[in-house]
Amino acid sequence: MIIDIHGHYTTYPPGVEAYRGAQIAQMGAPTKGQMNVTDEEIRHSIETGQLKLQRERGTDLTIFSPRASWMGHHFGNELISRYWTEHCNDLIYRVTQQFPHNFVGVCMLPQSPGVPPSNCLAELERCVNELGFIGCNLNPDPSGGYWQEPPLTDRYWYPLYEKMVELDVPAMVHVSATQNPAFHQTGSHYINADTTAFMQFIQSPRLFRDFPTLRFIIPHGGGAVPYHWGRYRGINLNMGRAELDELVLGNVWFDTCVYHQPGINLLFEVIPHQNIMFASEMIGAVRGHDPRTGFDFDDTKRYVDALHLEDADRQAVFEATARRVFPRLDQRLTQQSR
Amino acid sequence: MIIDIHGHYTTYPPGVEAYRGAQIAQMGAPTKGQMNVTDEEIRHSIETGQLKLQRERGTDLTIFSPRASWMGHHFGNELISRYWTEHCNDLIYRVTQQFPHNFVGVCMLPQSPGVPPSNCLAELERCVNELGFIGCNLNPDPSGGYWQEPPLTDRYWYPLYEKMVELDVPAMVHVSATQNPAFHQTGSHYINADTTAFMQFIQSPRLFRDFPTLRFIIPHGGGAVPYHWGRYRGINLNMGRAELDELVLGNVWFDTCVYHQPGINLLFEVIPHQNIMFASEMIGAVRGHDPRTGFDFDDTKRYVDALHLEDADRQAVFEATARRVFPRLDQRLTQQSR
Repeated sequence: MIIDIHGHYTTYPPGVEAYRGAQIAQMGAPTKGQMNVTDEEIRHSIETGQLKLQRERGTDLTIFSPRASWMGHHFGNELISRYWTEHCNDLIYRVTQQFPHNFVGVCMLPQSPGVPPSNCLAELERCVNELGFIGCNLNPDPSGGYWQEPPLTDRYWYPLYEKMVELDVPAMVHVSATQNPAFHQTGSHYINADTTAFMQFIQSPRLFRDFPTLRFIIPHGGGAVPYHWGRYRGINLNMGRAELDELVLGNVWFDTCVYHQPGINLLFEVIPHQNIMFASEMIGAVRGHDPRTGFDFDDTKRYVDALHLEDADRQAVFEATARRVFPRLDQRLTQQSR
Repeated sequence: MIIDIHGHYTTYPPGVEAYRGAQIAQMGAPTKGQMNVTDEEIRHSIETGQLKLQRERGTDLTIFSPRASWMGHHFGNELISRYWTEHCNDLIYRVTQQFPHNFVGVCMLPQSPGVPPSNCLAELERCVNELGFIGCNLNPDPSGGYWQEPPLTDRYWYPLYEKMVELDVPAMVHVSATQNPAFHQTGSHYINADTTAFMQFIQSPRLFRDFPTLRFIIPHGGGAVPYHWGRYRGINLNMGRAELDELVLGNVWFDTCVYHQPGINLLFEVIPHQNIMFASEMIGAVRGHDPRTGFDFDDTKRYVDALHLEDADRQAVFEATARRVFPRLDQRLTQQSR
């Protein structure tokens, strides 16, 4: 079985945009309102998009969450974010209900700049316990490019981590759009956030002593981290600490959203294979064919296949590690196979 | 000849710290004051530091600039920054006077948050015309981690670029310390800035039509860029533009400050060799031995040597490209060799 651990609903039907647009007009007095999206619209958007590519590329199951660039935690206030989040997570639920064998849900959280993350606990519980979701996306920068929140290792975030541990769900560290013109959303803000989060973990690994079973996924191949693995090892060893493998890799995984063969080769050369999970983030940041290969940039399965991994490693990268990092996925798949 | 294009005076004698400390006490009414550093202190700091490593590692000449992490443009006001900058550049000048065959100067600029870069022109001219410097370091984020300035492609920066073109000097894009606790200075802020700057160039390549001879160096191996080269190519091609080679690589170069062999291998696999210049940034962010190799993490010459480049490529990476990107260096070396 081939599990793609990183997909977003980037092909929202038009009613989603309309809902979001209406929120601008009611910033002073937000109401939850309706998300006018039919089951047929959902089916069509998925069948002509992500499901089509699953079939073409030969993957089986996508861990699916709301469109990351539209999480837009910076917009409006806590209540705006809450209503929007609930609707977006419900959309993902509807996708998983229509296509239970192809998509499993991961939720966004109702974050808002300066609002402590304890406001996210109820929605995380609802998504996991009522909607059957298996993880969450955590935005380390709800300000959208101004980085106003404490590092992810700060006690500020601990209430959320306690709930994640209790529910046994991991978080993918994933920012949303940038308001800051210095950054390009998918070209620098995403990648910078990945690098930033990993370095926060290195700086304050106490987090993983406080929460030994807490699990994070750094997407987009870990940002800049594998390319600069010597830098991170060196900075860390300079602090007199154990090697990174021991210090953080019991709690942190990378995905394979790196859109060329040399990058994938490097990722697998320097990061232990048990810390890598297959992902493509399709349909996402980079659409279209690479004219030099004739294939889609984000068809990452080709790059991983080209590594000719040993069977056990291949099984780990495509399935087994995902089932270990997302125990609720493992339960689900075990039940389905009975 | 082996030219290391990226070195900072990270081993300042104690008088430098004292000067900086005194500035805190006079923020309201700064005076230029004295930098109490003797020639003997400079000689000692260099001979036991950077010069010793040059000899051990077999490099010949370092393009040398003030300590990047101490540029601290975020601190104080425009006048504080100006006095500090002038003193730091003078220190570099004194190093180059004492060791004219081993070090050539690059200046920091008296940037200050929110102050238009036209305030940097006089100091750049002084350093180039009076002190014999061959380039400058440009900080895209003088706020120190809050990214308040317009992108480097904005007309805001054009007065500086006009002066750079007039003087025929390149800029290395290099941030300083971070005030923002989300970032680690050398672990994420530096790398993020590299990635951010390159993506700014991709977004608005008009800059290089406006200034066809403007030249930038992205340090630290280009941040995350080579590792995600497929992402950048794809994002760019999606905009219907020419390949990155054509779009920006006539004006942008990467250095080799990547501190492990797999990273250097990737850099040379994906980036045209004529866009790569040798550098180590010693003595810098990552000090000490890699216990797995027994050699210093930042001894990047070993990694480049291990590539067994063809002679012409090797000559380009170690010398010829630097002489092309820094024409004033070429003039200097040509004169010295007569």
